[in-house]
Amino acid sequence: MRILSGVQPSGKLHLGNYFGAIIQHIAYQDQGEAFFFIADFHALTTLPDTAKELDAVAGKKNKPTPLNQILRERVRDVALDYLALGLDPNKATFFRQSDVPEVTELAWILSTLTGMGLLERATSYKDKIERGLTPNVGLFTYPILMAADILIFRSDVVPVGQDQIQHLEMTRDMAGYFNHTYGEVFPLPQEKLGEAAKVPGTDGQKMSKSYGNTIEIFAEGNALKKTIMGIKTDSLTPEQPKDPETNTLYQLYCLFANAEEQKALADRFRAGGLGYGEVKTMLLDKINQHFAPFREKRKELVARPDYVEDVLREGAKKARAEAQKTMDLVRKAVGLR
Amino acid sequence: MRILSGVQPSGKLHLGNYFGAIIQHIAYQDQGEAFFFIADFHALTTLPDTAKELDAVAGKKNKPTPLNQILRERVRDVALDYLALGLDPNKATFFRQSDVPEVTELAWILSTLTGMGLLERATSYKDKIERGLTPNVGLFTYPILMAADILIFRSDVVPVGQDQIQHLEMTRDMAGYFNHTYGEVFPLPQEKLGEAAKVPGTDGQKMSKSYGNTIEIFAEGNALKKTIMGIKTDSLTPEQPKDPETNTLYQLYCLFANAEEQKALADRFRAGGLGYGEVKTMLLDKINQHFAPFREKRKELVARPDYVEDVLREGAKKARAEAQKTMDLVRKAVGLR
Repeated sequence: MRILSGVQPSGKLHLGNYFGAIIQHIAYQDQGEAFFFIADFHALTTLPDTAKELDAVAGKKNKPTPLNQILRERVRDVALDYLALGLDPNKATFFRQSDVPEVTELAWILSTLTGMGLLERATSYKDKIERGLTPNVGLFTYPILMAADILIFRSDVVPVGQDQIQHLEMTRDMAGYFNHTYGEVFPLPQEKLGEAAKVPGTDGQKMSKSYGNTIEIFAEGNALKKTIMGIKTDSLTPEQPKDPETNTLYQLYCLFANAEEQKALADRFRAGGLGYGEVKTMLLDKINQHFAPFREKRKELVARPDYVEDVLREGAKKARAEAQKTMDLVRKAVGLR
Repeated sequence: MRILSGVQPSGKLHLGNYFGAIIQHIAYQDQGEAFFFIADFHALTTLPDTAKELDAVAGKKNKPTPLNQILRERVRDVALDYLALGLDPNKATFFRQSDVPEVTELAWILSTLTGMGLLERATSYKDKIERGLTPNVGLFTYPILMAADILIFRSDVVPVGQDQIQHLEMTRDMAGYFNHTYGEVFPLPQEKLGEAAKVPGTDGQKMSKSYGNTIEIFAEGNALKKTIMGIKTDSLTPEQPKDPETNTLYQLYCLFANAEEQKALADRFRAGGLGYGEVKTMLLDKINQHFAPFREKRKELVARPDYVEDVLREGAKKARAEAQKTMDLVRKAVGLR
């Protein structure tokens, strides 16, 4: 069973990414032939917007960071993050999307088979435009490149979130158009909906970069402490009994605690006599405990500057060989060469 | 001066192609560093429609020709045609577009910089849809791949017809977006409007495949004779004087005749006493005389089955090396790798 998944290099990873996707991504390396890529071609659809945001945050006094530096650093960061968090390049094929440029050739071929109507119905494009992203053609044709990512590895299973189900349906449509027009080349990939944990942000809403309510995985020391101590709570006094189920601190704590610990804290919430300050300290300890070994591992990797590049290159070699096998079939079917 | 031009492998070439484009294309090999490619990636935007048309002509009894065979044969045919007509692979770099797949990678990058509005204003897309072609995404994003074709060779000059001027403007726009966003990489290519001769078809309208009024370059013998004898004329008797300027036969004759011959025939038109049958025979002789050496050359090339493939491969090697130089600059500017 071949499982493909990818991640966009979109900055610092947070607990929402971790419990919502990263844990599952890493688990796939033990469940089949896992391919995992950093989607730098996709990142280009928003890179100029990203750079503008960063510049706005940095303020006018600072010289803007060159776009290529932003992209290179983000790709390197996300690679370090995943390797530190347990992605094992001996188990999964871990690579950079742009190191397998054949995917853009397949995207072109698929685009000649894809009706405009299909893309026009994609909700992700509309959502992105509504969020204020520049409506460029890459953003519009994004589902075709995503389909090419999946199909070029003839993947059986693609783990996706709820928001990506439509893209998987479109991928199957495109595979079907191709097979129908040029002969059977692509298996139809199936989505695997992850049981993503609900992760509240520091304001109680869903944790998301766009809400500015994240807790970063690799934050530590005072920065992390400040974030945790700043989590919004209601105004109940320590003495008053509290409902754990609707409480952000309790929900975050549960992500790290075993059943026994969860029950113990819930009982104390209900009993009253527990201040939020104490819960925040308990949560901070849990987070530190959980991520301490990963932080150490990340520092070790950072100290070996060639390591990440070597891993990605080695991964690209394997991935590209697979992609080229598929493209040989595709080109023959289509009549190119 | 680097000059890029391309041709779609769209079936049998006719006199309209010859006097409107091919002669100029071939002349460029003596005017600069000429790159000339067969646009098979572009041909995919209409290949399924083409196959349907061919099947409709062939009738239901015949087994449909596989699409890959159609494309391969058309690419081979247009290569044979150009080589027979004088394209010299020692002067021009002659290659197949799909042998330089880097062009699709550049197209993706440009698509992330191109606003949807730019493509929506393209008149060629609207024209194609009106002509009944299937509105697929490739047809819509066609101008981006065309821009990539031009920019990847950092071409100075691109010979185009009137209908392609908008595409050249769009190419300059895209080059400008890129240079502005990621730093100066692309020179802005200039169009060169060919002085295309007016070539009437057998019905007096502009010669065009879509009107079914073409005279094929490599037709000969009875097939050619039948076409020429079938050219529509008015109902003036041989005795009556005729106006040469508005006469299809005269206009076609002039494409092959020198000034003296043109004047002699015009005088005979005006004097009266000249039947259209005689003019048709004169025209047929001229066509046969002009194309005889090219037909011989083409037969020689057909008899050397590896020759065309060798030429295109050799051309691809040179073209790809140039494309990769550009892509190294592009990837560095963008931050890929």
